[in-house]
Amino acid sequence: MGAQGTDALLADPVAVRHAARAGRLTGQTSGLARGRVQGNVAILPASLAADFHRFCLRNPKPCPVIGMGEPGSPLLPELGADLDIRKYWRDALVAFVLGGSVTFPEARLEAGVPLRHVAEGKGVAMRRTSIDCTPAGPIKGPMEVSMRPMKPADAIRAVQVTSRFPNVHGAPVHIGKPEMIGIADIERPDWGDSVGVRDDELPVCWACGVTPQAVVAATRPAFCITHYPGAMLVTDLRNAQLAAL
Amino acid sequence: MGAQGTDALLADPVAVRHAARAGRLTGQTSGLARGRVQGNVAILPASLAADFHRFCLRNPKPCPVIGMGEPGSPLLPELGADLDIRKYWRDALVAFVLGGSVTFPEARLEAGVPLRHVAEGKGVAMRRTSIDCTPAGPIKGPMEVSMRPMKPADAIRAVQVTSRFPNVHGAPVHIGKPEMIGIADIERPDWGDSVGVRDDELPVCWACGVTPQAVVAATRPAFCITHYPGAMLVTDLRNAQLAAL
Repeated sequence: MGAQGTDALLADPVAVRHAARAGRLTGQTSGLARGRVQGNVAILPASLAADFHRFCLRNPKPCPVIGMGEPGSPLLPELGADLDIRKYWRDALVAFVLGGSVTFPEARLEAGVPLRHVAEGKGVAMRRTSIDCTPAGPIKGPMEVSMRPMKPADAIRAVQVTSRFPNVHGAPVHIGKPEMIGIADIERPDWGDSVGVRDDELPVCWACGVTPQAVVAATRPAFCITHYPGAMLVTDLRNAQLAAL
Repeated sequence: MGAQGTDALLADPVAVRHAARAGRLTGQTSGLARGRVQGNVAILPASLAADFHRFCLRNPKPCPVIGMGEPGSPLLPELGADLDIRKYWRDALVAFVLGGSVTFPEARLEAGVPLRHVAEGKGVAMRRTSIDCTPAGPIKGPMEVSMRPMKPADAIRAVQVTSRFPNVHGAPVHIGKPEMIGIADIERPDWGDSVGVRDDELPVCWACGVTPQAVVAATRPAFCITHYPGAMLVTDLRNAQLAAL
């Protein structure tokens, strides 16, 4: 891809989607279309969609719905111009887009809260917890969290900053004592990279977008489509538009 | 005091001030004039007032100024009707009123965050820290904090709730590792009562209104008046009026 193409991908969400649709972009979306909301995708048979929607409403921290297609339609016009979610499609599917945490590094960096996994070039550490989501029909399971080690003053600032964004997981669900939420060894992630917690840091845990994928998979649906981790749906929404205040 | 008088004190800030002025009320103000802001008082010679005002502006978390009298005047009309701060007076004094944390139990209780020292009938634990305030002229010294033990999820909620009230100390200054702010034994307070931190709790520390008293006392002023701890100035302002958002 030429320099001009790369510049467009850094700034223009429509260019990112067109590049993905044309097969020119197949990898991670982190850092692309700066300032725009990126979402996790779940495309489900209509038979499971009502349960999944209810599950999301009951568990808004791990599953914040920011867009939902008409049954059978691959288009999500409220999230972007010419936004066609198709790679594969068939009738009677319903597309859900959930706010993803790729959004919050930017908000936190603007607030001066350092993210050590970013500084170390790692992916964020993700863990399964003992916190049960509220079930809906056949959909149930534990909440998954992402963990970021932070100095105490940064953890307080991070609560403030992320509380403004309930549609991208919002405030942390836990600080400081991961054994209380069923995490025995905080430095051994189930997904992502291991990031150690230093003596002057607290582990800070946010509800994570892996949750809906895991609970849907556990129902063994006849068919479903999700995004590849890190390769998210780039929308036209600006991050600031998701701010609750 | 008759039942009718007590009812008035629970609801009416003017009645509280009149009872104090008449000598009928001499004790704690906690629980009186529900929903109204209560402030810490510092009355200083005009020669020290400019430095103190600058100190407060530089250290807004321990020293949030919510009212300031004209030099030489004992009245603070912006804080209440017929509000006369005199017990003793002389010329060339300046009265400062600083937001006090008596306000926040109500906001937190409304948000469902339990306060264990209240449940145990104790005063909040206060500690001197190794955090230096930003000095102004001769006024300098360490920040004092109040400590409340909370379960992690309640600590997160408390950050959110108290962040709305920057004029009553705002968000915590520390969570979880008191040794990082120079507190070796969190269960041994410098003032107030000892409240233990349980295994499933984190110590959460807020900047405390003892700070301005301590730093002013350390300058050994020729003259100053402060309130007796817990016997605060009851204003007409409603707590909700102090909310930043």
